[in-house]
Amino acid sequence: MKLSGRSLIGFGSSTATNEVFYAMNPKSGERLEPAFFAALPDEVDRAVRLAHQAFATYDRVSARDRGAFLRTIAANIESIAEDLAERAERETALPKARLQAETARTCGQLQLFAQVVEEGSWVQARIDRAHPNRKPAPKPDIRSMLRPLGPVVVFGASNFPLAFSVAGGDTASALAAGNPVIFKGHPAHPGTSELVGLAVQHAVRQCNLPEGVFSLLFDSGNRVGAALIKHPLVKAAGFTGSRTAGRILMDFAAARPEPIPFFAEMSSTNPVFILPGALRERADSIAAGLYASFTLGAGQFCTKPGLVFLPALAEASGFVNRLQLSINESAPFHLLTPGIRSSYGAAISARKAKASVRLVAEKPPKGTAEESSVGGALFETDARSFLADEKLAAQIFGPVTLLIRHSNREEVLEAARNLEGHLTATIHGTEQDLQEFNDLIAILERKVGRLVFNGFPTGVEVSHAMVHGGPYPATSDGRSTSVGSQAIFRFCRPVCYQAFPQAALPDALKDANPLHIWRMIDGEMTREPVRSAVTSIG
Amino acid sequence: MKLSGRSLIGFGSSTATNEVFYAMNPKSGERLEPAFFAALPDEVDRAVRLAHQAFATYDRVSARDRGAFLRTIAANIESIAEDLAERAERETALPKARLQAETARTCGQLQLFAQVVEEGSWVQARIDRAHPNRKPAPKPDIRSMLRPLGPVVVFGASNFPLAFSVAGGDTASALAAGNPVIFKGHPAHPGTSELVGLAVQHAVRQCNLPEGVFSLLFDSGNRVGAALIKHPLVKAAGFTGSRTAGRILMDFAAARPEPIPFFAEMSSTNPVFILPGALRERADSIAAGLYASFTLGAGQFCTKPGLVFLPALAEASGFVNRLQLSINESAPFHLLTPGIRSSYGAAISARKAKASVRLVAEKPPKGTAEESSVGGALFETDARSFLADEKLAAQIFGPVTLLIRHSNREEVLEAARNLEGHLTATIHGTEQDLQEFNDLIAILERKVGRLVFNGFPTGVEVSHAMVHGGPYPATSDGRSTSVGSQAIFRFCRPVCYQAFPQAALPDALKDANPLHIWRMIDGEMTREPVRSAVTSIG
Repeated sequence: MKLSGRSLIGFGSSTATNEVFYAMNPKSGERLEPAFFAALPDEVDRAVRLAHQAFATYDRVSARDRGAFLRTIAANIESIAEDLAERAERETALPKARLQAETARTCGQLQLFAQVVEEGSWVQARIDRAHPNRKPAPKPDIRSMLRPLGPVVVFGASNFPLAFSVAGGDTASALAAGNPVIFKGHPAHPGTSELVGLAVQHAVRQCNLPEGVFSLLFDSGNRVGAALIKHPLVKAAGFTGSRTAGRILMDFAAARPEPIPFFAEMSSTNPVFILPGALRERADSIAAGLYASFTLGAGQFCTKPGLVFLPALAEASGFVNRLQLSINESAPFHLLTPGIRSSYGAAISARKAKASVRLVAEKPPKGTAEESSVGGALFETDARSFLADEKLAAQIFGPVTLLIRHSNREEVLEAARNLEGHLTATIHGTEQDLQEFNDLIAILERKVGRLVFNGFPTGVEVSHAMVHGGPYPATSDGRSTSVGSQAIFRFCRPVCYQAFPQAALPDALKDANPLHIWRMIDGEMTREPVRSAVTSIG
Repeated sequence: MKLSGRSLIGFGSSTATNEVFYAMNPKSGERLEPAFFAALPDEVDRAVRLAHQAFATYDRVSARDRGAFLRTIAANIESIAEDLAERAERETALPKARLQAETARTCGQLQLFAQVVEEGSWVQARIDRAHPNRKPAPKPDIRSMLRPLGPVVVFGASNFPLAFSVAGGDTASALAAGNPVIFKGHPAHPGTSELVGLAVQHAVRQCNLPEGVFSLLFDSGNRVGAALIKHPLVKAAGFTGSRTAGRILMDFAAARPEPIPFFAEMSSTNPVFILPGALRERADSIAAGLYASFTLGAGQFCTKPGLVFLPALAEASGFVNRLQLSINESAPFHLLTPGIRSSYGAAISARKAKASVRLVAEKPPKGTAEESSVGGALFETDARSFLADEKLAAQIFGPVTLLIRHSNREEVLEAARNLEGHLTATIHGTEQDLQEFNDLIAILERKVGRLVFNGFPTGVEVSHAMVHGGPYPATSDGRSTSVGSQAIFRFCRPVCYQAFPQAALPDALKDANPLHIWRMIDGEMTREPVRSAVTSIG
């Protein structure tokens, strides 16, 4: 498949300019053709205006047609899965099998949202029947349902070139809810982005939807992203990336004349608590699972376990030895971008320089010939030092984790109480551990979006109950998830219709319930039609 | 009942200081005893710290006990209804009957939330069963439900001394969801606030809840409010008031090191569209209803219809004459505070000075003896002038509205497209009107939280389907409502439990469904218990 290097603006494409950038193979350092052109300011504006125009039509598209659109996108992506994996491998150095699985996950997400939209109950239809005879005043008929917000901007993440990129979770949920999407591609994988973008653009045509439903804009810097967040016709945005960039964009969104909802997933160190009973019972298997989890994707997962609380027991040394061995035996890791690599190097050096931290294991990169690779690392400290130095809690992207040894229950509870917001927290324990550490669960419930028991936080299931979110700074708004079907609630708001005639109501709110969806009628969940207005006061 | 003038901080009260203020009778200008003392900075801090401590217990309180608490507050308020109406009348000049109705509404809100909490399904429990045999990787058991956020700050509104004040909607929904509340009383009705505050404080004791569950802080200025919004232990806030104050607090909330959800209801002019058929059929009754609506509560409702679009038909003159007559016959209106009165005077003068606006009717206040009263007013302009001058769309608190005459369909659609966010929009039409103006409904759906047909926007029903919200600047976040049972979703967030043993799960997520609530199991709504894990892939 031939890449053009141009942004997709509705059905058109951007112009060639002097502002170009290239993808790079993180393994070889090789520059990848073609050149990609940064979208010009008027092209950014055009994409948003097209989205604004398209919204007037797209928010009227039936659930069936919107579902078909999402399924068409998935089919188009599946049809180029080989090309995608090949290009993405060169742009990210992620293993091909992982990229194939991520493509399947991306299509699965689109299909899940198609299913949610086709089923239809997600709109949370509520109907309160009229009481014309109520005293002192009649009660009017009141009905409400969720409706889309308008043009949504989504920023691609570096670490998931498919599942959190052009047709990833935020795009899928925004489109599912009825919002046009303007996508800002991540500059680390522009070729992968263009391929997926063309698949979406083609689906828009195939489904006879207005062209502004989707645009994909390129830029290697911050200009396009800032312009998008500040554009008055943009109504919401989703972002996955660094805490620094996320907070800058959050502040832009909040400082607009009309502030907009901005969902940023920013940083998380995903604490793991290994409780005494579990450590006694299965130190080895926990160590093996932990190693696999913190080095998965070269440690570049937002759910990477970066803090591991370890009790002072005899079994701890075997546990640490096992991790040490795994690191010493590990193959070199390739990070996604030179920027991530240099941040990793700097973070490892800073940690080594700390008197309160001990380097337990490190596999140094293999000399100049492989200068693009990095080695895994394991540090340890004690709970008191951890509490005294907030930098130790910071996220480091890459194959490293920090063990925190504690000598008693109160120390670990204190450390938990002092955690900031994270995406996940993990507890390894026996049933007896759980009883003894019941208050730990209560503390962690207030700190994270997902609690994992006897497992590992990497591998985020795409399902109805998943919550991939968490209190700030894990995300900008802990009341939301970016993974799973509940993500559809990000990009919509309730609208209420008072005393509306049947013909003017959306289908979801009509008496007959033609969509056969679950609705709340007078406070009761039902799929039954609405009977007539209440005539006596019950 | 004797008032102390002191803030309620948990079970204690604040100290007397020199920073005092008094309530004022808007009718007589008379200063009302006692003096109220502004809470000191360390008292603000103490209230928040108590709330933070209480949260650890209060979020564990069973649904039954939380429901009982809300019902106890309602009962305590009912038991002092006479004292309340008497004090509130003196502080607000609102009619006693209205204040009695508002007290009933306030208790009704508390009871509605009690009912929602006791029923229990509001937590949106979701369960995705494990698939241990799934390939390539087993699927873990994933469950999620809503949980409270933590200490919530609520600001009282001037115009609803009961229903949007100390035990009003935001307090009720925050407490219902499991959050402690720190209430910042509005300085225009401190006595009413103290009475209600004592009723809530007493309920906390009666129900054996920790003292920090509720505090009430007084201040006549901005110091206490700003300190509350900026306090690191505060996790969310609700506000009803002016656009200026709302935006300042919004910006504080967004600029915090840890930004928090901030729900401000700020300003709305609530456009009314009178369509040709309706004007022909019933100009007189619409005029009568409109007059009653825009002068209700002396025009100090956030849902007051402040913009009325009127087609150029012969019947329009009768309609205008009817309104003119009503204004000429009206009794003087008493506004809530000297500040509101002077803003009203300034806005009326500014409007009179505009060449593009005509004063249709005005009942001037009755000389110096009644200097605290104001007269109603009616202005008119044309659609083109309205589009050219955004100040004409601004909210004016008080008994005034603006007629906008338009000469064709396209003019009114253009005006609708240019509206900013409002709480409501109202359409008066026949069935044929609705067909002809179908696109008007589509435009307004994107502009407001509630669409009213052949009715008036004032009188906000407290029910399950109500949406009292709308896009900025009507509110800070159009994805939320401050009235009705959906308001409980403001102050909570989803938390997910992966592979948790039954004993460690909240009751709402246990297999047996001991709370007998509606849950989503593998995507299907049901009240059935969970059967065992999926063993084959379906």
